[in-house]
Amino acid sequence: QTYFRSLELPSECKQKKSGSRDNFFDISQLACQPCNQNSSVQTHSADGLSCVCQPGYKLTQNFGGVAITCEKCPSSQPVTSADGWQCVSCNANNRSLTSNTCPSCTSVSDITVERLLDGQWIHGTPQRTCQTCAAGTVPSADGTRCVRCNQVISMLNVQNSCDCQAGQQSGGLCFPSDPNLPTGTDFTIRVEESDVTSAFFRDNLGAAYEMCKFDSTTGKYGNLTACQTLGNMCMLTYYKDISTVGSSGSAINRKACELYDLVKGSSSQDWPPNMPWLYYSENGKNVLDDTGITQDYYVSPSHANSKLKLIVAKYALNGTFLGLENVTGDTLQICSGNLKMLNAALQFGTTYSLSCQVSMDDLWDENKYPLIFYDLYLEFTDSSGARKLYAVPVLIENIDSTKHTATNQEEWKMTRRFFLIDNQALKTPPSTTTGTTPTVTPASTRAKYVRYASEMTLTVRLQNGQTGENTANKEGRIFPPYLRIKYLTAKEEDIGTGIEVDFSFSTVYTMPQEKFSQDVGIAMAVFGVMAAIWGLLRTWSWYKRTGRVGIDFLTLIKFVLYSMGAVGNAFFVVMMGAAFWFLLFFKNQGIALLVPQTREQENIYVIYISVAFALKVIDLIHMFIMHSTIDIFLIDWERPKGMTKKEEGVVEEPVSIWRTYFVANEWNEIQTFRKINTIFQIMMVVFLLHVVGFENYATRDAYSRLHFSDTNYRAPYSLVFRFALGATVYLLTGIVQWIWFTFFYERFISDPVREFVDLCSMANVSVYIMENYLYGYYIHGRSVHGKADTGLKDMFDNLKREENNMCGQRGLLPNTDQQTFRMALPRRMRQQYDKILLPLQAQAGQPQSRMDRGPSGQGASQFEKAVTAYETVNRLLSSFIDHALRDIDYIVKDKLLFENILDAEFEDTTLRGHFYNDSGHSFDGVLFYGNEVTLFIFDLLFFNIVDLIAQNFVLAGVLTYVMTQLIVMLRDFSGKKNLAKKTLVDERFLI
Amino acid sequence: QTYFRSLELPSECKQKKSGSRDNFFDISQLACQPCNQNSSVQTHSADGLSCVCQPGYKLTQNFGGVAITCEKCPSSQPVTSADGWQCVSCNANNRSLTSNTCPSCTSVSDITVERLLDGQWIHGTPQRTCQTCAAGTVPSADGTRCVRCNQVISMLNVQNSCDCQAGQQSGGLCFPSDPNLPTGTDFTIRVEESDVTSAFFRDNLGAAYEMCKFDSTTGKYGNLTACQTLGNMCMLTYYKDISTVGSSGSAINRKACELYDLVKGSSSQDWPPNMPWLYYSENGKNVLDDTGITQDYYVSPSHANSKLKLIVAKYALNGTFLGLENVTGDTLQICSGNLKMLNAALQFGTTYSLSCQVSMDDLWDENKYPLIFYDLYLEFTDSSGARKLYAVPVLIENIDSTKHTATNQEEWKMTRRFFLIDNQALKTPPSTTTGTTPTVTPASTRAKYVRYASEMTLTVRLQNGQTGENTANKEGRIFPPYLRIKYLTAKEEDIGTGIEVDFSFSTVYTMPQEKFSQDVGIAMAVFGVMAAIWGLLRTWSWYKRTGRVGIDFLTLIKFVLYSMGAVGNAFFVVMMGAAFWFLLFFKNQGIALLVPQTREQENIYVIYISVAFALKVIDLIHMFIMHSTIDIFLIDWERPKGMTKKEEGVVEEPVSIWRTYFVANEWNEIQTFRKINTIFQIMMVVFLLHVVGFENYATRDAYSRLHFSDTNYRAPYSLVFRFALGATVYLLTGIVQWIWFTFFYERFISDPVREFVDLCSMANVSVYIMENYLYGYYIHGRSVHGKADTGLKDMFDNLKREENNMCGQRGLLPNTDQQTFRMALPRRMRQQYDKILLPLQAQAGQPQSRMDRGPSGQGASQFEKAVTAYETVNRLLSSFIDHALRDIDYIVKDKLLFENILDAEFEDTTLRGHFYNDSGHSFDGVLFYGNEVTLFIFDLLFFNIVDLIAQNFVLAGVLTYVMTQLIVMLRDFSGKKNLAKKTLVDERFLI
Repeated sequence: QTYFRSLELPSECKQKKSGSRDNFFDISQLACQPCNQNSSVQTHSADGLSCVCQPGYKLTQNFGGVAITCEKCPSSQPVTSADGWQCVSCNANNRSLTSNTCPSCTSVSDITVERLLDGQWIHGTPQRTCQTCAAGTVPSADGTRCVRCNQVISMLNVQNSCDCQAGQQSGGLCFPSDPNLPTGTDFTIRVEESDVTSAFFRDNLGAAYEMCKFDSTTGKYGNLTACQTLGNMCMLTYYKDISTVGSSGSAINRKACELYDLVKGSSSQDWPPNMPWLYYSENGKNVLDDTGITQDYYVSPSHANSKLKLIVAKYALNGTFLGLENVTGDTLQICSGNLKMLNAALQFGTTYSLSCQVSMDDLWDENKYPLIFYDLYLEFTDSSGARKLYAVPVLIENIDSTKHTATNQEEWKMTRRFFLIDNQALKTPPSTTTGTTPTVTPASTRAKYVRYASEMTLTVRLQNGQTGENTANKEGRIFPPYLRIKYLTAKEEDIGTGIEVDFSFSTVYTMPQEKFSQDVGIAMAVFGVMAAIWGLLRTWSWYKRTGRVGIDFLTLIKFVLYSMGAVGNAFFVVMMGAAFWFLLFFKNQGIALLVPQTREQENIYVIYISVAFALKVIDLIHMFIMHSTIDIFLIDWERPKGMTKKEEGVVEEPVSIWRTYFVANEWNEIQTFRKINTIFQIMMVVFLLHVVGFENYATRDAYSRLHFSDTNYRAPYSLVFRFALGATVYLLTGIVQWIWFTFFYERFISDPVREFVDLCSMANVSVYIMENYLYGYYIHGRSVHGKADTGLKDMFDNLKREENNMCGQRGLLPNTDQQTFRMALPRRMRQQYDKILLPLQAQAGQPQSRMDRGPSGQGASQFEKAVTAYETVNRLLSSFIDHALRDIDYIVKDKLLFENILDAEFEDTTLRGHFYNDSGHSFDGVLFYGNEVTLFIFDLLFFNIVDLIAQNFVLAGVLTYVMTQLIVMLRDFSGKKNLAKKTLVDERFLI
Repeated sequence: QTYFRSLELPSECKQKKSGSRDNFFDISQLACQPCNQNSSVQTHSADGLSCVCQPGYKLTQNFGGVAITCEKCPSSQPVTSADGWQCVSCNANNRSLTSNTCPSCTSVSDITVERLLDGQWIHGTPQRTCQTCAAGTVPSADGTRCVRCNQVISMLNVQNSCDCQAGQQSGGLCFPSDPNLPTGTDFTIRVEESDVTSAFFRDNLGAAYEMCKFDSTTGKYGNLTACQTLGNMCMLTYYKDISTVGSSGSAINRKACELYDLVKGSSSQDWPPNMPWLYYSENGKNVLDDTGITQDYYVSPSHANSKLKLIVAKYALNGTFLGLENVTGDTLQICSGNLKMLNAALQFGTTYSLSCQVSMDDLWDENKYPLIFYDLYLEFTDSSGARKLYAVPVLIENIDSTKHTATNQEEWKMTRRFFLIDNQALKTPPSTTTGTTPTVTPASTRAKYVRYASEMTLTVRLQNGQTGENTANKEGRIFPPYLRIKYLTAKEEDIGTGIEVDFSFSTVYTMPQEKFSQDVGIAMAVFGVMAAIWGLLRTWSWYKRTGRVGIDFLTLIKFVLYSMGAVGNAFFVVMMGAAFWFLLFFKNQGIALLVPQTREQENIYVIYISVAFALKVIDLIHMFIMHSTIDIFLIDWERPKGMTKKEEGVVEEPVSIWRTYFVANEWNEIQTFRKINTIFQIMMVVFLLHVVGFENYATRDAYSRLHFSDTNYRAPYSLVFRFALGATVYLLTGIVQWIWFTFFYERFISDPVREFVDLCSMANVSVYIMENYLYGYYIHGRSVHGKADTGLKDMFDNLKREENNMCGQRGLLPNTDQQTFRMALPRRMRQQYDKILLPLQAQAGQPQSRMDRGPSGQGASQFEKAVTAYETVNRLLSSFIDHALRDIDYIVKDKLLFENILDAEFEDTTLRGHFYNDSGHSFDGVLFYGNEVTLFIFDLLFFNIVDLIAQNFVLAGVLTYVMTQLIVMLRDFSGKKNLAKKTLVDERFLI
């Protein structure tokens, strides 16, 4: 068996011959088959699917296909009858010998007749004859009988024949003579800078005007359909009447609208009787600010009033009313798609946008895209429950491409009627048309241009949201929605070039954002002022801590820097609050009070967030510089071990430096330790937003869906919502991490800061940190055992003793455990310290690492000075701590509540330093550990800024990771350099 | 101005009255308007859009709407004429007084007449009359004239009148009497367990059969259209003929197919003449294994032969041929959507699937879903360039729901014709039908059941891919594609319940995977055996290193474990190679050689990958346990400082333990250090796959697109492709990281392992690591300065001296730099070591940390023993290194090339240990650092396994992060415990 055969098409069979026989297309075999008889007897039918008898032959059998037989007509009756089964003679026997047909009748008022009404042959024998129609009748469309010419006659009172005088005829009808009848250039439409004569206008404009014209005295005409046609033609010129182009505008192309105005009369009434309502008498602003739609709309998708119930009245080009239709997704959208998705365009509160490309050639397909005129209405239910139709205004950009693309609504000319694709009006009549009275000649079969509604935007404006007005009657109410249309033109010449044209349909919801902007502005101002005050406080505190004596430039700079950090926080808090409020409120509202910001309205929010981020960047750099320049010193409490007898004599064994190395190493390691694991944070946030799908809450619709199925419409994202979600999830995840860290991890698993303090105690090393000139932190690490530089056995015994409480407590004051302090130092102490460290600072100019330093004696001698200075400082500081200095002393005390809250010191420390008891880890203020909030807000803002730019949380996560790692590396690097410089510990031990 | 009015519908206006006037719907106002005259004169038209005269009134003006006036007919001519503009009398003046109409004519062969053909009144005056049709004619459809009853007459040779005898009539035609004419239950179709009588069958089955029957002697009948109708009816019973249901099957419901078989005759010919071809004579397997499609298909989308050119021949229910149509996306798919997307269903190589839900009520809409029968063909071009039509077989599941859902193709009955939605055949005739000869009574307007093609799957099978055959003529060739259809039924009772029904259309490409499976199997076997051999080698090496004397159970276990690791690697390499080859080959092929695995065929790959992962898990655990149980000892080379004179007398000052602490601390820190930063790795991989979009290469189509636009069809993912992409991107990113780390970071920035060795040297501490009983690593950390436990100044001097090459080199052998070694130890050394460490092992049973240990003397005395042991071991090991032991010695040598390659030691070390020079970091074999490959492959497989399960690379990234962190934490924890236990360094110093 073979399961294939050659492909043959019906059109190919028509050309084919099998010997002397014509072929038809066999629908069962999908192949050409020869007819039953040869081609002089039979040929293929017009569609090629069967055979028919040649003229002069009659059927004797007709079962289609090959089951057809024909028989030659006798010479007495040589012509085939109309039904094909009989042969007839011609009336005057004047048949055409070549084609075996009778000649057509000579007069246009003749009909061709074979049989009488009752089926008998007209003259008793099969014969074809011509009969003239009686008075008042004309041949019917198929020319087989005569019918009354009623319309023509009734139009003219005086006329009783079916003839019409020249000049009174238009579109096949006969009218009283009228000076307004259009001529010549009145039939043109302006397209792409040229005037194109429309065959339809030529054939119908006059007739439509005449039929539509209503004579109130005689009560005649006023045909509703004709008026619709006239309106359609006016619309096709894009409403080119005097009111749109002005009286000075070219009179050409505006005849249709002039005639429309003429019929309508001087009345400025909208919704004129008998006529279609084409344009609004009021200006755009007044039309669009009407508050006639007295229905409350709801955003919640389950509510009955959460749909925009649009209705279109449809009219054919010839004015036929095609019915009222509820608008669904596919009614006005050229783009095809899943109906459920397309319907989202009318879901209240869902910002919608769909675009697609359509092959330009298809635009000429009149079956696919019939020319239909639409009047758009909004159905609503008023307070009494009655169903109302509200006329939806249309703004056609092409009417006035300057004013209609600008925002001044007062200059907008709102109209009513529109089409989607016009592929009929621009068919041109043959160029042979001459004279002022057009005669009916066939139009071109293809329009010269096609005009199509490329961009359609339905804008819905909420009444709510303005400042200073009563909102009582505005909640859920909308102003009239309007449809903005931009028509483009496709040229016939471009057919076949494969061009694709764009179509898009959008639904946009807007509302005045004044009220919210005002609220946000107020919040910004309040928080901003508070932040500036906080900045002032911080500066004052810094001023005191640095022991300045006058307000200099640096103080002002510091004020700006501190304020910036605080204002950045304030901005962030306000923006996050506002964004989150918007999200929560919009998604959960019932009655429509709020719609998301449009892209333009969002800009201000994006700018605020960017400013907050920029401020945090400066804040971070500020912090960074401060932390990388602190003074730090490790005080070794170990006493020399005394003199050791060696071969070379009795020498003093130096105190081993390894404990100091150990402490410095650990300090280096905890520098960038954070309470919140940023990587876990990023992973978790990306997981929640992107994998779990919280991201999908950020769509501009009322749905809160974690996942979209393929059939759900996915509305575009709102940037404000994305920020709200991104920031909230980031913040909440951070808070959860912080709680976990603070209340569980730190207590039960590992607390690096406390472990460091513990290590100091065991190593017999104190840490002395100067953050500012007169302010710093002190970790008291003096071993309770007096010495730590010992062997395994002794270390174990020491630990053992401490466990068993067989030795003193670790605190600075006897019988306390307080090991960490904030220090406010007397100026003299600092001066001493600085004086000794001069050589160290000289040394600082030299590079540190072995490779760089080079084997010069210079470096070595410098270093020796440094070591001397180091030992001197060690002595100075340990004496200071031991109260052993004569002039310089300190007291230990608690900070006042206010001092704690404001992070400042009120009391004077010129003469005597203050050591303030702290929480056990105040020194983490110079580590990442104690600045979690600043770092966290920076990360959060960075994450969200990236997302606002790229709208991709995964990318934001990746970049935030890179950014945090860079910051850690930089901080580690600079912190290590500073530590090596200040403590003289070689960088090789800081690993 | 108000822009709204009440909503009124045309249907409402019909019911409305304004005073005495009826209302019509004004299309310009979209509102009800009263007619011009009161309701006795005018009423609304049928469509409600204008007014018409009541019977007995004639028009005097008709411009539509209100511009219509009627006038009462005079009593002499009281009836309105047919055209409405005149009044006529009735023939016998027998008009109906109530309705002002003439009675209809009494005989069925009468016509109603007013005017003659030429428009004159038939009797000179306006009158309506009846005329009887002449012999051989019958009234035309509109009853206004008589036409020839040609078909009826020609059917019966003997008959010349237009009458037909009872029993010879069917479907309005007249036939010779025939015993096969269907009766009663022959008109039923079986639907949902019940037999439903079809009005269409009743009206047409007999006629179709008679018209189709071809009498070769008389050459009569054989009407092509009628044969198509008969075929359609057979199809509507789902081909219920004897061959499908068997001769024992119920004879009911199968009359249509029986009649079809009767006409077709005994010939088993497919593609029978005149008739539609309904079913294949051969079984499914033979049909589907035909190789008649001699065209090469291409996968590359730009190639001309990359489309499946399907053609349908369409037939209406009544047999009318509706033309040949090229199948595009929307031809056979009920689901609507963007045409570009729908067209993807016919893109060669694109696995396609689209499903949607349609409101069940719509199925009854005959305009939306007309009943069309399709014969499906594939157009192809043979080698000579001729266009051919290949008949595409259809597998209808409903024909035999058991055999047709099974996979045995030999039992499949392939058919040809199908419909999409049948909403016409199951309209039932009124229940009053009685007797065996049905009379023409109107059918129900709505079908009782609708049957619809719920699931359609087009399967395309490549010829390529079988083993052991010549592939020369198979590349690019396909077997006949086939369409599988599953029909479901919707019931009329369910209309209005809001049920939605499912539709889906899929295109599936398959090919035998035997060849590939075989190749993969062979590769698996080869690599597997090699892996097992490697496992054997590793076991042998381990056997030697542990110094075993016989093959015990543990040895076997070890063999299994080592083999598992190696086999896991082998599996991974083979699977990754195969998957990547598939991806690359499929996406880049021109002529079609390969299609992706189907979901079923993919399973084997998923299983292989899972097995590889499982093996790597075991491998990892194995490594984990080995690393967490190594013996490690820190040898302190520092000599005691001699006796110090103190107040309490001369005491020996112990060597400070802090250098040991420092070294142990650093060892603890480098345990989990890796060459590849896993977090960066994950971030980068997710970024590349998900953000950049490499993920999109994994679709089952020939496109390689980083981003899909909304209008592109997104084919489902292939798991094999996802694995190929995931693994490749992961691997490449890893390799790039490794190169960066090895050639840049390690050299120029930081090399933690080398820094650790450096630290050992500076601290004067050696590290002695025993991985196995007799095998381990040694880091020689003896200070070149003799001592390291000194002050800042001395340390600086030491560093300085070393810089200036003023001291010896650090190597174990004089004048070498080699500090790190592999050790193969003599057994006696190990026995010594173990003997000393017995107390330590006893101590090991005790908890370590201060909190746990409690203040008991017991722990302390235990610890003292341990310290003693510790010091003894320190002496033992330092003596050993110094060649100071009498019986136990070692030599330093290079490893042989083979020893290096196989990672084993060939020589005997019973008497003398061997220290092998190494690369400088062989000891990282017990750290993560030296096991990067194992860890990396584990991470990679974990990442991809998660993705295979969830098909989400972001989720895979997050979980891989969590997994790697858990592993690191676990390793850190256990490594720290082990370190503390083995070196006696308190965990507080391991921070």
